[in-house]
Amino acid sequence: MKSKFIVIEGLEGAGKTTARDAVVAVLREQGIDDLVFTREPGGTPLAEQLRVLVKQGIDGETLTDQAELLMLYAARVQLVENVIKPALARGAWVIGDRHDLSSQAYQGGGRGLDTQLMSTLRDAVLGEFRPDCTLYLDVTPEIGLQRARARGELDRIEQESLRFFERTRERYLVLAAQDPTIITIDATQSLPQVTQSIQSAVRHWLAGQTA
Amino acid sequence: MKSKFIVIEGLEGAGKTTARDAVVAVLREQGIDDLVFTREPGGTPLAEQLRVLVKQGIDGETLTDQAELLMLYAARVQLVENVIKPALARGAWVIGDRHDLSSQAYQGGGRGLDTQLMSTLRDAVLGEFRPDCTLYLDVTPEIGLQRARARGELDRIEQESLRFFERTRERYLVLAAQDPTIITIDATQSLPQVTQSIQSAVRHWLAGQTA
Repeated sequence: MKSKFIVIEGLEGAGKTTARDAVVAVLREQGIDDLVFTREPGGTPLAEQLRVLVKQGIDGETLTDQAELLMLYAARVQLVENVIKPALARGAWVIGDRHDLSSQAYQGGGRGLDTQLMSTLRDAVLGEFRPDCTLYLDVTPEIGLQRARARGELDRIEQESLRFFERTRERYLVLAAQDPTIITIDATQSLPQVTQSIQSAVRHWLAGQTA
Repeated sequence: MKSKFIVIEGLEGAGKTTARDAVVAVLREQGIDDLVFTREPGGTPLAEQLRVLVKQGIDGETLTDQAELLMLYAARVQLVENVIKPALARGAWVIGDRHDLSSQAYQGGGRGLDTQLMSTLRDAVLGEFRPDCTLYLDVTPEIGLQRARARGELDRIEQESLRFFERTRERYLVLAAQDPTIITIDATQSLPQVTQSIQSAVRHWLAGQTA
């Protein structure tokens, strides 16, 4: 089977790390073990520097919504061109912790940035490149933030208002409904149930892949 | 008179620093001495960090043309929103060493990036905001680079091929011809002649400002 790019998406506290482990277990079951893990923003030296700037901001300087979006896309293009595409080309499977859908949901939905700008940026940066499969872990902001808070300090974006995360989740759900490559997982279930849902979805998706 | 945003543009070695001094002398002559100086990319803590990343790149990592462009615009929106607009609002005049025209010329012309992307970015980042006057110092790449080299080590962009700077200059000239707010100065002349041309152009422009 041709190597694939699988992305895990969702709000803070949706359970992305657990989901990744569940996906890896299914792939290994199928003998797929040349795996590359990425996270966004980040994953190249430059992209990691941009991640720090976006996540922490700079003391005393307001980070505009536009600059945030542009830095996220700068990090993304570096990761896609320098890491993801080369990995896929050599036959590795790539598992991404977040990708373009996060920008569509957080910056497009949460911050309400112009959809024309969002789609122009995506086209300019990604062209026709898309994940083969995206697992969107759906949780309410209340549950997600409660879990994220339990893990420790929140970063700049995680400190946004509940309303911001409601708009973000809404955009995730709308985009998932429109795109057949996005599988929505109910991540409010118990941990074993979420793991089971993910593994069953990935097995089903893999079975349908012919090339 | 309402405060203005004056930008100085041109290839490396065109003489932007000398030009700035010439502009300042004319403004002071007119009693305008609340001046703010900016440079691009840069001018805010975040934008200066982006400047370093763009100018020096990161060892061993290819900087894509798209990431370069996105980081330049991220730096620009921070500068415009956090420095230039507030300065103009309080009545200061702003003198910029480079602004959007540099991206149009270097990334649009030199690197040949898509014009649709360039104009979408400009609109998203700047809206209707434009300099009141731009002095474009026109030199051939041969002369400019010779002067820049005489100053010392060249940065990542200054090490581009002659053909890159020829395309950049060409785009500068085309855009200057289309935009009445851009004044082209022949910067291949001797230093005293360039200074005189600039001062005469600025005096003439100031005399035509009614508000």
